[in-house]
Amino acid sequence: MTDETINIEGAVCAPPLHHNEQIVMGHGAGGRMSHQLIQKAFLPAFQNPALQAGDDAALVDAGLRQQLSISTDSHVVFPLFFPGGDIGKLAVCGTVNDVAMLGAKPLYLTAGFILEEGLQMESLQRVIVSMKEAAEEAGVHIVAGDTKVVQKGKADGLYITTAGIGVVRADVNVSGANAKAGDAVILSGTIGDHGIAVLAARGELGFQSSLQSDVAPLNHLIAAMLDASPNIHVLRDPTRGGLATTLNEIATQSNVGILLDEKTLPIHPEVAAACEMLGFDPLYVANEGKLVTMVPREDVEKVLAAMRKTRYGEGAVIIGEVTAEPKSRVLLKTNLGTTRVVDMLAGEMLPRIC
Amino acid sequence: MTDETINIEGAVCAPPLHHNEQIVMGHGAGGRMSHQLIQKAFLPAFQNPALQAGDDAALVDAGLRQQLSISTDSHVVFPLFFPGGDIGKLAVCGTVNDVAMLGAKPLYLTAGFILEEGLQMESLQRVIVSMKEAAEEAGVHIVAGDTKVVQKGKADGLYITTAGIGVVRADVNVSGANAKAGDAVILSGTIGDHGIAVLAARGELGFQSSLQSDVAPLNHLIAAMLDASPNIHVLRDPTRGGLATTLNEIATQSNVGILLDEKTLPIHPEVAAACEMLGFDPLYVANEGKLVTMVPREDVEKVLAAMRKTRYGEGAVIIGEVTAEPKSRVLLKTNLGTTRVVDMLAGEMLPRIC
Repeated sequence: MTDETINIEGAVCAPPLHHNEQIVMGHGAGGRMSHQLIQKAFLPAFQNPALQAGDDAALVDAGLRQQLSISTDSHVVFPLFFPGGDIGKLAVCGTVNDVAMLGAKPLYLTAGFILEEGLQMESLQRVIVSMKEAAEEAGVHIVAGDTKVVQKGKADGLYITTAGIGVVRADVNVSGANAKAGDAVILSGTIGDHGIAVLAARGELGFQSSLQSDVAPLNHLIAAMLDASPNIHVLRDPTRGGLATTLNEIATQSNVGILLDEKTLPIHPEVAAACEMLGFDPLYVANEGKLVTMVPREDVEKVLAAMRKTRYGEGAVIIGEVTAEPKSRVLLKTNLGTTRVVDMLAGEMLPRIC
Repeated sequence: MTDETINIEGAVCAPPLHHNEQIVMGHGAGGRMSHQLIQKAFLPAFQNPALQAGDDAALVDAGLRQQLSISTDSHVVFPLFFPGGDIGKLAVCGTVNDVAMLGAKPLYLTAGFILEEGLQMESLQRVIVSMKEAAEEAGVHIVAGDTKVVQKGKADGLYITTAGIGVVRADVNVSGANAKAGDAVILSGTIGDHGIAVLAARGELGFQSSLQSDVAPLNHLIAAMLDASPNIHVLRDPTRGGLATTLNEIATQSNVGILLDEKTLPIHPEVAAACEMLGFDPLYVANEGKLVTMVPREDVEKVLAAMRKTRYGEGAVIIGEVTAEPKSRVLLKTNLGTTRVVDMLAGEMLPRIC
């Protein structure tokens, strides 16, 4: 760390878990508190190599010819409907993307619905149609489901938990642990669109916005990238906790540094304006249709070209590089020429964003 | 139908779905209203052969040597802890059992947690330990998870959605659609234990009870049964909606009749007493550690013998037979010598039982 380094999140420390501790909203924000909950409560009990790998999906061997990628996400976004999407589209895309990020072709989804008594059937139907359309676009089948109903007030309309499985391409080896010094860091488009669109839908922006959530299935984009270069090292979608948290996860898993160049970060002007007004850093705002990838230098041009030919990758840009030092750290070269540490999200910023 | 036939549930008709309709608790009870919701809202959107088969798990082909069995269940049981188990054990066993009921060896689970702000960490830890123990007993690994937090009051402590996958044994062909006239109907033990144990935990029984939920992983029982006879036609766990609803599902899927003999139905005396007091029919009370199976006559003795050697099948008995007529109907020969139709659960009986 240089003298210019300022740890913007370091002052906020999440406490260790104690038995008399209670769950707080920050445990669900996808940042440091979520990580501590997982590390201290879940991992010791459920330890197995697939879970401990720390990726958003698990790589498992079912005694078959090819490996499977398995993932799950619970969705509690509020409100249920927001510009650009709804909880149904989110539930399908979120799991499709997590499965695909290990270099897999997603095939099948399951969906567990927790419905609130009094939910309008019309709302449920809209969500179902939206799931159907997203599944069709992604080319996956929803093959198993379950429905439970809880009393009025015990859920906000509905919660959806999806799980997905896919078959891993035999020619690739993609993991958050595979970033190598010298890799280029490529981002598929603007950051923060989803989080700010959901805030807008809650009426918390204080101004009119035409911003749409970026929620989208990224599996076809990923297939195009892997067709262009099976040597891609890392694929990850920066959802809850934003790009900053995702890059910190990768830096830790791969034991490398990541150096970002602030001036290259694509940010929609409305997102920038909203963040400035609300005091948010767009690096921590959730995305639902973006990916970040670490690519060996020699393959960067062909990967970028392949991405830019796709619907969800046309805004792809290089935003930084993987460095040997400082290990497990993300640094940002700011527009002012200084360098600061970008930590992972410490607690809660935007609850119920996905 | 004979003159003696009385349709005990027929008087309660669930309305068709309209757009201005609302979700009510009965949509989550696992009976006729749940079926209508699935048939009218979910199936038309997500149509694919695996889902339409109507089993508790989906049989899919991932382009691999063997078929996969996939299932999911959301768990919202209240209270979280009850005699004999808790929501964690339930979440693991429920999905393990659904995956296994297609003749598969369950391998991997995912778990999505929706936590209520203010949940005691100690409660979460107890649930996690319970999941770990159930997974170990079943021999499955929990390979992917997700945690969301909702505001206080927006969940009852926690909800857990599990999904599971298993590899289908190559030598079997088990489905709710495979029951054949002449098959024996075998039940693995007493009915109604889970539902009444949860009621007792809610303090709704009005008397002290030592009854325990039967929640248990049944995959080893199923493996022993299929080792004894790969010709087993149907395996199904009678959970929400009870044995009556499950048998109606099978009668419809297989287009056969099922004739039960009331005097053979194993019912724990405390369950019988509680049901009599509360006006419940134990045929509709939930089980979480029982299975019903349809077995060709020539294999009945060896299947029964294999079941009785296992921990969760020692109380196995023949409770009836599959008949050619009346199609899609379940009949019960009562202790009085009359015969009545046993319909599926029409609406809600015991909410939040799993």
